[in-house]
Parts: sequence; structure tokens; C-alpha cells
Amino acid sequence: MTIIDGKLTAKNLREKLAIEVAEMKSEYGVQPSLTVVMVGDDPASQVYVKNKVQQTQAIGMISSEINMPANCSQSVLLDQIKALNHDSSVHGILVQLPLPHHIDESAVIAAIDPNKDVDGFHAINSGRLFNGDLGAMVPCTPQGCVLLIKQHLGGDLSGKHVVVIGRSNIVGKPVAMLLLQENCTVTITHSRTRNLPEVCRQADIVVAAVGIAEFVKADWIKEGATVIDVGINRVITHDGKYKLVGDVDYQAVIEGCGAITPVPGGVGPMTIACLLKNTLLAAQATISKRSV
Amino acid sequence: MTIIDGKLTAKNLREKLAIEVAEMKSEYGVQPSLTVVMVGDDPASQVYVKNKVQQTQAIGMISSEINMPANCSQSVLLDQIKALNHDSSVHGILVQLPLPHHIDESAVIAAIDPNKDVDGFHAINSGRLFNGDLGAMVPCTPQGCVLLIKQHLGGDLSGKHVVVIGRSNIVGKPVAMLLLQENCTVTITHSRTRNLPEVCRQADIVVAAVGIAEFVKADWIKEGATVIDVGINRVITHDGKYKLVGDVDYQAVIEGCGAITPVPGGVGPMTIACLLKNTLLAAQATISKRSV
Repeated sequence: MTIIDGKLTAKNLREKLAIEVAEMKSEYGVQPSLTVVMVGDDPASQVYVKNKVQQTQAIGMISSEINMPANCSQSVLLDQIKALNHDSSVHGILVQLPLPHHIDESAVIAAIDPNKDVDGFHAINSGRLFNGDLGAMVPCTPQGCVLLIKQHLGGDLSGKHVVVIGRSNIVGKPVAMLLLQENCTVTITHSRTRNLPEVCRQADIVVAAVGIAEFVKADWIKEGATVIDVGINRVITHDGKYKLVGDVDYQAVIEGCGAITPVPGGVGPMTIACLLKNTLLAAQATISKRSV
Repeated sequence: MTIIDGKLTAKNLREKLAIEVAEMKSEYGVQPSLTVVMVGDDPASQVYVKNKVQQTQAIGMISSEINMPANCSQSVLLDQIKALNHDSSVHGILVQLPLPHHIDESAVIAAIDPNKDVDGFHAINSGRLFNGDLGAMVPCTPQGCVLLIKQHLGGDLSGKHVVVIGRSNIVGKPVAMLLLQENCTVTITHSRTRNLPEVCRQADIVVAAVGIAEFVKADWIKEGATVIDVGINRVITHDGKYKLVGDVDYQAVIEGCGAITPVPGGVGPMTIACLLKNTLLAAQATISKRSV
């Protein structure tokens, strides 16, 4: 049984990216840059943004942060995004979600230039991913899941049966599309699925992205299967403290599965690493456009 | 065992649409209009276009046809599309595929105004479908499949297990997304799938869209399952004549299944009916925009 080390894989990816960033700078004089837009001062969002900024800078990219007040109007935010779209020194734009309730998130996402949309949430990027087009900006967490699966099972996933638990636009559906592109047979399950344990037991690979603590039980997992746990749930322990657990009953599942990602230290670290990768790709695309 | 009559269902849908077209005309003075652009003179395409034009006119819509020579350049075609995009009297634009080899189909599809893209092939519409957004232009054949399934099984498909055979951008993937929105558990299979018969046998609903004559056999189908056959394959009979068969071994499967669509007369007639529906929706959207 293998514990898939997302922390190490993410570190290796960041090191590879740092080399490419340095090369881009010396060869083309271009330093990839990511701008994070944050509205309000939600403490959890602040932690996420701080991590993103730190890691962006650590691999030699330019990181900018734009903080807007919680009561900022939607049109002011949209103007800000338009300005970033037109600023050629900005390669990636990320609007930290969730936004305050008076702002329409989908309108904000639709306003981001799809080529700078490093979260991969714009409908054009969803469509490109869906159609299997190269040049799609692929959402970060699903991308990280596939990298972890391929690291463990090797590059060829042809014919593996994947069961995805959860059908969100940010994880379940995109990870299903990516694994379909890898020639997996893909089953998408959700709250309305009947006999979920039985469906899961057929899977060579299970991706759990349902947001319920320790939802996936040991007898749902075929012996030797690979288990990717996307969930991050905060639960209270017996002694009244908090701990983070995934969507998988880790201690029980670990016995029979072939490989599993821990929480924390599995998929989580891959998300930001893939964000940096998307930012690099966005910067590379501006160079190849210039040279055409 | 029920034979799902696509011809009748399509006729009923067209009659319903004709009433809505007449109402729109009398209430808003707007007559929905569809322009079909055809490049070259492929005989099969000519037949398809002729059918589309006839059916469009039959329900009271305006139908226009633009014929361009086979050697027409890509930029001339793109200019034509731009002109149609800007022509407010045109609600739906359909470019008949396939295009001659010197023209990049994806560039042509990307040039169509997504709100006039009645085929639903533009990446923005794929993305909207993927994200479950209302307001997506949904590709016609998958839309027709879902209408036939709901007509037979009723409106609530929650928890039904669907196996889709084939993962094309025009049928397999969009029909999977539509049935996921209907709360089905969805498995997408293809040429690399292992034990396809066994996977199929779990399905309450099988959608076959693989393009291989009589590919799906009787022992792949669970007793009572609903079988939707999207394939249209031309095969030679014993006496040297041609006939059309689907992707399902109809004569054998018909014994044990709960319901099946015939070929011809199943999914086929639904495709053009859904094209007309998309054209009506495109016209309605211009009115609701006007009234805002």
C-alpha cells in the first residue's frame, strides 16, 4: 500500500516550474505574473491568498494582490478586472472566491479574459476542456488529482474504471473529463446515485469530492484500488479539538486499497502548484503569440 | 416492450413549436429565422439542408440558405458569418458540416455568435452545458435523446444508471452531461473500455453513439432497460441492396429490453426538431433582451 505524497509531488512540480520561469526570464525577458483579487477580509480567504502569494514568489514569478473592500460594488470590481485584462504585464488573474453576496460570481468569472483565467472557471475554458481542446485552462484541483494518479499508476491509464463521487463544476465534472481524455471509463456519481458502495467497488480509481467527512468506507473500495481524496473537512475530535479529515475513512480504507492520498498533504498542495503551472502556461502563450 | 416512436414525438414537438412561432409573431411581430450556410455541393449535405429548410418553413419560421462554392476561402466564409452575426433579422446560424478540408472547422464554429449557435457547438455553449447553466444552446441530437427517454420513463430520471457508449463532442459527452443534470448516475464508455458488455448490463438506460453497425448485442442489455440508438449506419444486405441500421442489434435486443428507439424513425427525426427548438429559443432571447 502506497501513501501518495502530494506535498512532495507539489514540491517537485514547483521546482520544475521554477526552472522554466528562470529560463523564460533569461530567454525572453518575460517574468510570469499572477494577480490575485480579493474582495473583503474573510480570514480563511486571507490564508489562502497569502499561501498563493508566497508560493508564486518562491518560484520566481511576480505576485500582485489587489484588495477591495467588502462593500465594493460589482461594477467597480468588473472595471478592475477589465483593467487587468488589458494590462499586458499581467498573465494570470485569480479572483478569490467566495465573493460577498451582493456580487454575482458568474458575471465576475465571465469578465476575466479566458487566456488569463488561471482558475479555469470561465465557460470558454470549461467548453475547451469538455471538447478536449488543447489550450484549455484546466481547473487546478482536478489537474492535481490526475497528476497524482499518473505519478502512482504511470502515464497510461487506458481502460481503468474511475468512479468520481461528486459532480461539482470545480472538481467532479472536470476531473471526469480529464480522466476520460486519459482513456479511462468514467462513472460520475452523486447524492442521487443508487447502491453507491456497489458502484464504487468496481473502480480501479476512486476520486472522492463530495465534502462529507469520512464518507467513503473501507468496503466500498476494491482491493488494490487507487483512492484520491479531495475533501478537506474540519471535524471536532473527542478531546474537543479540531482536525482536518478527508471524504474517505482513511484509517479503515488504508488497509485494503493499493494507494491513497492523505488529508492534509494529498491533493491540497497540488492545487496551488497547478495554479502556478497555469500561470506559466498563460505567460508562455503570450510569448508564442508574439513570435507568430 | 415499447418501440419509442421518434417520428411521432418529433411531429408533436414541431406542432408545439409552430404554435409558439405563431404566438411570437402575433405578440411581438418577430418571426424566428434560421440561416443555413453550406459550402460546396456534397450530395448528402444537400439532402440534410433541404430537410432542415423544409421543416423550418413548415412551422412558420423564416429559412434562408447561403450556398458558397467548394473553393471558397476560409476568410470569405468567416466574413459571411460575421455579417450574419450582425444581422439582427437572423436568429439562428447553422454551418453545415463537414466543411472542405482547406477550412478549419473549429475556427468557423468559434466565429459564430454563441447566442445564434443553434447547433450548440461553440465552446461557450459546451462550457455552459458542462457547468449546467441555463441559457446554453444544447446540441440537437443529445437533446433529442433526453426528450425520448423522458417521454418513455417520465420526467424524473433520478438515480437511473445510464451507460453512454461513445465519447464524441457532439453526442456522447453532451448526452452524458444532460443526463447528469437529470440526476442520473452516468458511465461514459468507449473503445478502451474493458468488459463493455458487463458495464452495459448494469444500465437502466443505454445510449449507443459509437457509429458501428449493430455493435450492441442482446446479452449486454439488462431486462427492461431503455435503449436509445443514435447510430445511423448504411450496410449492404444479402441481396446487394443498402439499408440503414443503428448501433444496436435491434432484432435481437428488442426481445428483452423495456423500450428501444428504431433506426430510422428514432433519434434521427428528433435532431431537426430540436434544431427548430433552438432557433425559437434564440429568437425568444432577443425579445427578452429587448424588453429588459
